[in-house]
Amino acid sequence: MSVFDSMVRHGLPLVPKFVVGAVARRYVAGETLEDAVRTIRELNAEGAMATVDVLGEEVQEREKAEAAVAEYIRIFDTIEELGLDCNVSIKLTLLGLRIDEEYCRANAEKIVKLAASHGNFVRIDMEDHSCTDATLRIYRDLQERYGNVGVVLQAYMRRTLSDIGDLLPMNPNVRLCKGIYREPREIAWKDFHTIRANFIAGLEKLLAGEAHVGIATHDEHLVWAGMMLVDRLGVSPDRYEFQMLLGVDPQLRKIILDHGHRLRVYVPYGRDWYPYSVRRLRENPTVARHVIRGMLGLGAAE
Amino acid sequence: MSVFDSMVRHGLPLVPKFVVGAVARRYVAGETLEDAVRTIRELNAEGAMATVDVLGEEVQEREKAEAAVAEYIRIFDTIEELGLDCNVSIKLTLLGLRIDEEYCRANAEKIVKLAASHGNFVRIDMEDHSCTDATLRIYRDLQERYGNVGVVLQAYMRRTLSDIGDLLPMNPNVRLCKGIYREPREIAWKDFHTIRANFIAGLEKLLAGEAHVGIATHDEHLVWAGMMLVDRLGVSPDRYEFQMLLGVDPQLRKIILDHGHRLRVYVPYGRDWYPYSVRRLRENPTVARHVIRGMLGLGAAE
Repeated sequence: MSVFDSMVRHGLPLVPKFVVGAVARRYVAGETLEDAVRTIRELNAEGAMATVDVLGEEVQEREKAEAAVAEYIRIFDTIEELGLDCNVSIKLTLLGLRIDEEYCRANAEKIVKLAASHGNFVRIDMEDHSCTDATLRIYRDLQERYGNVGVVLQAYMRRTLSDIGDLLPMNPNVRLCKGIYREPREIAWKDFHTIRANFIAGLEKLLAGEAHVGIATHDEHLVWAGMMLVDRLGVSPDRYEFQMLLGVDPQLRKIILDHGHRLRVYVPYGRDWYPYSVRRLRENPTVARHVIRGMLGLGAAE
Repeated sequence: MSVFDSMVRHGLPLVPKFVVGAVARRYVAGETLEDAVRTIRELNAEGAMATVDVLGEEVQEREKAEAAVAEYIRIFDTIEELGLDCNVSIKLTLLGLRIDEEYCRANAEKIVKLAASHGNFVRIDMEDHSCTDATLRIYRDLQERYGNVGVVLQAYMRRTLSDIGDLLPMNPNVRLCKGIYREPREIAWKDFHTIRANFIAGLEKLLAGEAHVGIATHDEHLVWAGMMLVDRLGVSPDRYEFQMLLGVDPQLRKIILDHGHRLRVYVPYGRDWYPYSVRRLRENPTVARHVIRGMLGLGAAE
């Protein structure tokens, strides 16, 4: 493993912000809602739906959380005005989960309530394991009262199949992804094949129940498994969609759409692009290598 | 692959006994029953059950086989006296299988009969393929007459799914493991993923039947598969247990216990630790590398 790979895998303390910034240009729509709108329009034009996310997380100050709520409220007006095929994704640590759970819940409720009045939908992202229980509590509360909320479960978590079992009776809307945070072995599966297998097992459990499912993956094996399962179980097209992140494998996006499945792209924007981009970078260190080589005038790495 | 790795993989002709001895300290409780008792108490204190094994195999002299029987008889008194949560595992080549099958069966019967009088259980380990048929014959005979005996099947053996089919009507108690002996390709699967898949297929067949099952593995993917299967098939907790060897991955042991599953640890002791330790070493050559580097004062390898 090169020094660079090692650096990347161990949390990137040495990756300068300008490098991450170059990486961000691939994964982030821009700093403003207008940037996001441009991207969403392009996606809608290719037949993809979008979910827009205001970047930011782990806020400790109420002003920041409230600025985020205000930004989300601006989003719904824009979506409606421009007729975009787009819902929103929110992160509870941006809305004040680290400050106070009830305060956070109330902030999330403002967004959910406004979304409901626009006939729109809110996905609550899942963050690291310290948020899991609170996120599920807030999801249950808001979904039961408004009915337009979804949550995310991560296939790398040992608890996920059990969480699916707990949620199924409420016919939940669940985005299933592998998970991207660094979690301890005690609570998270670490083996690549086991995580894949657990993703498939969770997906089957969700689809065999009455859940609506976002199949969120760039792993083509899981795309295959998802297509197999919806076919075998005869899942109606409105009960599932594939989901991918902006900037990852547009060709796969097209393949999924060309096969007649619905697909939604996660479109993050905002000034706080650093932690999101670092996670993307950890997932795909090659991107940073390309960026750095490009900067040094070395040409493509491979 | 280094010369050392190659040496280790090809049967360790060059590994000196003192190196294997250093390795044994990790996988063997000690040379005496008292050493084993200390280990079993520690395991019981962490919530794990144990199965104790007197090291030794391939004996050609009746005195050695009879000494082993006497040692097992001493074990049951100790288990009862100290209230240990522990059963026993026996190897038929230690009890004289290479001398004479009927002689071996009679020795095993002495142990099984005494176990039955103590309300305890005897697992007959499976050894290399030359023992498979005799081991299954002795298992059937003793189980039918005493009811407190279990056997082992190895997922690497091509015959195993068929053996499961043959045993299922008697509601057997089967430990399923991958298998550790060097078997010819004609009778054993060699591919890692195929052995895994055969393990899962065998496990499902056992659990879907009425068997009691010891899920004996350190492969976390198979731990995952076991958890999935008992959940999906609704297997009651008294019908299965996970099983691991002493000295292998205590963190995984804790994870399994923390998730509410029963777990039993295989605790070997005795003076004849060489062949057992060589098999462990072949399974995990890294251990020997660490031992040798430590001896040479080279520090940790990685």
